[in-house]
Amino acid sequence: MLENALSDKGRSDDYKELTNELEKNLSALQQKIREKKLPVIILLEGWGASGKGTLIADVIKLLDPRFFKVYSTMPASEAERRYPMMKRYWEKIPEYGALSVLDRSWYQELAIAKMEEGISDEEYAERVDTVNTFERQLTDDGYLIIKFFLHISRKEQKKRFLKLKEDNATKWRVTELDKKRHKNYDAYYKQFDDMLEKTNTEYCPWKIIDTTDRRFTRFQVFNILVSQITNAINSERTYPEVPKDALKQFDLMPPVSLADIKLENKSLQPTKYDDELKKARKELARLHGKIYKHKIPVIMVFEGWDAAGKGGAIKRISYALDPRGYEAVPIAAPDKKELNHHYLWRFWNNLPKTGHITIFDRSWYGRVMVERIEGITPEERCAMAYREINEFEEELIREGAVILKFWLHIDKDEQLKRFNARKNDPLKQWKITDEDWRNREKWDKYESAVNEMIAKTSTKKAPWNIIEANDKLYARIKVMNTIIDVLSECIKRSGH
Amino acid sequence: MLENALSDKGRSDDYKELTNELEKNLSALQQKIREKKLPVIILLEGWGASGKGTLIADVIKLLDPRFFKVYSTMPASEAERRYPMMKRYWEKIPEYGALSVLDRSWYQELAIAKMEEGISDEEYAERVDTVNTFERQLTDDGYLIIKFFLHISRKEQKKRFLKLKEDNATKWRVTELDKKRHKNYDAYYKQFDDMLEKTNTEYCPWKIIDTTDRRFTRFQVFNILVSQITNAINSERTYPEVPKDALKQFDLMPPVSLADIKLENKSLQPTKYDDELKKARKELARLHGKIYKHKIPVIMVFEGWDAAGKGGAIKRISYALDPRGYEAVPIAAPDKKELNHHYLWRFWNNLPKTGHITIFDRSWYGRVMVERIEGITPEERCAMAYREINEFEEELIREGAVILKFWLHIDKDEQLKRFNARKNDPLKQWKITDEDWRNREKWDKYESAVNEMIAKTSTKKAPWNIIEANDKLYARIKVMNTIIDVLSECIKRSGH
Repeated sequence: MLENALSDKGRSDDYKELTNELEKNLSALQQKIREKKLPVIILLEGWGASGKGTLIADVIKLLDPRFFKVYSTMPASEAERRYPMMKRYWEKIPEYGALSVLDRSWYQELAIAKMEEGISDEEYAERVDTVNTFERQLTDDGYLIIKFFLHISRKEQKKRFLKLKEDNATKWRVTELDKKRHKNYDAYYKQFDDMLEKTNTEYCPWKIIDTTDRRFTRFQVFNILVSQITNAINSERTYPEVPKDALKQFDLMPPVSLADIKLENKSLQPTKYDDELKKARKELARLHGKIYKHKIPVIMVFEGWDAAGKGGAIKRISYALDPRGYEAVPIAAPDKKELNHHYLWRFWNNLPKTGHITIFDRSWYGRVMVERIEGITPEERCAMAYREINEFEEELIREGAVILKFWLHIDKDEQLKRFNARKNDPLKQWKITDEDWRNREKWDKYESAVNEMIAKTSTKKAPWNIIEANDKLYARIKVMNTIIDVLSECIKRSGH
Repeated sequence: MLENALSDKGRSDDYKELTNELEKNLSALQQKIREKKLPVIILLEGWGASGKGTLIADVIKLLDPRFFKVYSTMPASEAERRYPMMKRYWEKIPEYGALSVLDRSWYQELAIAKMEEGISDEEYAERVDTVNTFERQLTDDGYLIIKFFLHISRKEQKKRFLKLKEDNATKWRVTELDKKRHKNYDAYYKQFDDMLEKTNTEYCPWKIIDTTDRRFTRFQVFNILVSQITNAINSERTYPEVPKDALKQFDLMPPVSLADIKLENKSLQPTKYDDELKKARKELARLHGKIYKHKIPVIMVFEGWDAAGKGGAIKRISYALDPRGYEAVPIAAPDKKELNHHYLWRFWNNLPKTGHITIFDRSWYGRVMVERIEGITPEERCAMAYREINEFEEELIREGAVILKFWLHIDKDEQLKRFNARKNDPLKQWKITDEDWRNREKWDKYESAVNEMIAKTSTKKAPWNIIEANDKLYARIKVMNTIIDVLSECIKRSGH
């Protein structure tokens, strides 16, 4: 993509007036962005001394400082490296109606990492994939991402470095790393070109800007910003249709229907339970230590019918764990700030670091159950979630995480019994709300949503574990033993 | 306080039944805590091998894991050291109705820092002050803080270390640091004792627990937890009265009344303005570099009448700044999560790191203006804020921050003119809301609240700068020049 991107054409003053006009437009657009709740990400990559800093200053000068944020991407810190690569970028996506300007970005994890950190071809290819998926997910949600690559020739770069070095006030800006990169201009050129090619998607294309002439650069960049933002503001908000075969890429398990789950005879005597629990607790504690030692992040997801016993199961697990190494995260309806971001944002913000466990009491699967059935999110937006969720989980697994998903299953009679018991117990009344009764009336709708969810998101690497939970004791032990099996297997597989 | 805290008395099985009863009580109390929206902090400090870990496990085993969080305090990381000392503790205070268990805490910054990091006596005394203020502010707000110090004798500690070392599975737990501390038991004893003495406040007293006998330890700790929590739940929620002379400790400036501010003849010709702005911008840019280099955090607070020109002033400042070194934070009405914490929590979360600037567009002063006048917060709670805010700012300054507070002042006629201009300009209509008109009707109430605010929070180190803003150009230049003066002075004073 870099070939022929540079031009020798002389640039004159022609653009000055046009640029002034564009500046005015851009300044006026920020209010529209806010009104339309359009989230905008402007991202600048490019060569050293290609003028990123100046350009960012030029752009934001036109905007209200309370309305945008500027982020400079540094190499990931030690602490950041304990999380999935994309976490620090997800955390910083703008709210709907706000704007972020990125001085370097997730693209540092691609070409630069390939050149300087020695990541393998395979890792590089995976990261390309990850980045394309990330940008597609945001774009699908309505984010506008405008990507600039600022390009200069080797000769021009040399000239600029020399000029910087001449002046005592600026010579510190030319670092050893800059010199090294300049010396290997050709190799970097090839790598950048490859990266640009592979991430130049239909939904998020690159804009290669020849920055040899500053005035012309400004004109081009402002022109692109104004036209792209105007476009996004004026277009009707629609959700893209998910390709019919979108789920084919995932290794899905054969579908299971809740109606086929046998709940009778799945019970445990209290004395047997006590023995089993004691054993399981000890083993889980041991495995927690192993996980910690081998820096494996573990994510547990608990879903299930109201009153199915999620809380009780989570409690039994947590008894076995060192409190400094796990966190239980209850997921309620999203608050205002969460509603103002891509729905996966709040889950990215709560992922465990290496060696730690996060237990989600309800999860991102709310998107395809409650949000769908209660009409909180439009049907067509919910339909997109199966692929997004599979991608999300696949990425976490690729980076080393273990994901355990549980559906706690009871039948309608058992639920009624438990609801009534709660209603009549003064100590448990708080656990039962009108909403629970209302949900119960929609049992059939939920059941078919759960069946669809299981069919579409039970992947080989992160399968749903359906737990027969009419008997609480049986359910708890089955949950714990499932965790023990999966973690043991994982530790064995990783050669520890 | 440690003297006579240990006892040779033999402990029998007597406590077993009592402890069981307490366990049940504690478990039942968590629902009450939630209902009453009581925030609880349980904090454990003590000697190495005094049994903190076991005790924490004993306590949380009784609780729903979705309801509490456990935090282990490690030495502050490089990144954390770039913020005020208490920031990382403020960030983690529980929400109303939730519970945190702290395995070590801010007390690491006192005795341990004195023994091992060589902080001066003066610094130590300041930190004692800081911690006492922090705990008082939380307690005043209704937080229940229960502080345990787990105590064992030198002999007992030796015995425990030996036992740990005997077993291959546990010997790694006795670190070099433990050995060093054990060797200097007497010196640490003295330092701990001093710390306990100085932080044993009426509102937040220490509980010294002799942990020689584990069963008795559990009994004592559970007993204290149950009685303190029950007590807090059953007491009527009242706000403590602020002592009449509470503001005497702050170096307050002589009060100024808005009515005495002359607004006429404070204007600037546009050409003069352009010159001044250019000059100021250059100087501010230079100072921003200095601040960054010398790692000074800067906090700017903008308050003022609606339409007084806060946004415009902030914009002019930001033009002069490197976007990677400052952030503008607009403060709106608190969201649900923010309302569920001490009101200063969200401001602690937004402080600048060393070398950076945070510009607050509205601020914590909302507490004594809009929250007070609109009755969002009870009058008696608002009345407590003057001291709290002075303490907050004083602490930031003590840790090296510069605080610049601006009140942008216009008169009632000028506001009307601007409101009407906004109403009639399609590009500016969004800036004017019904609320603005309603606020305007309460002009006199606001004026007297502002006068009180200025009188009670204009300290010598963080004085209010009242900016005559009937002429926007004049106001912007005065703001910028004030910033320039204060920052130059600060850089000079710090010897750079």
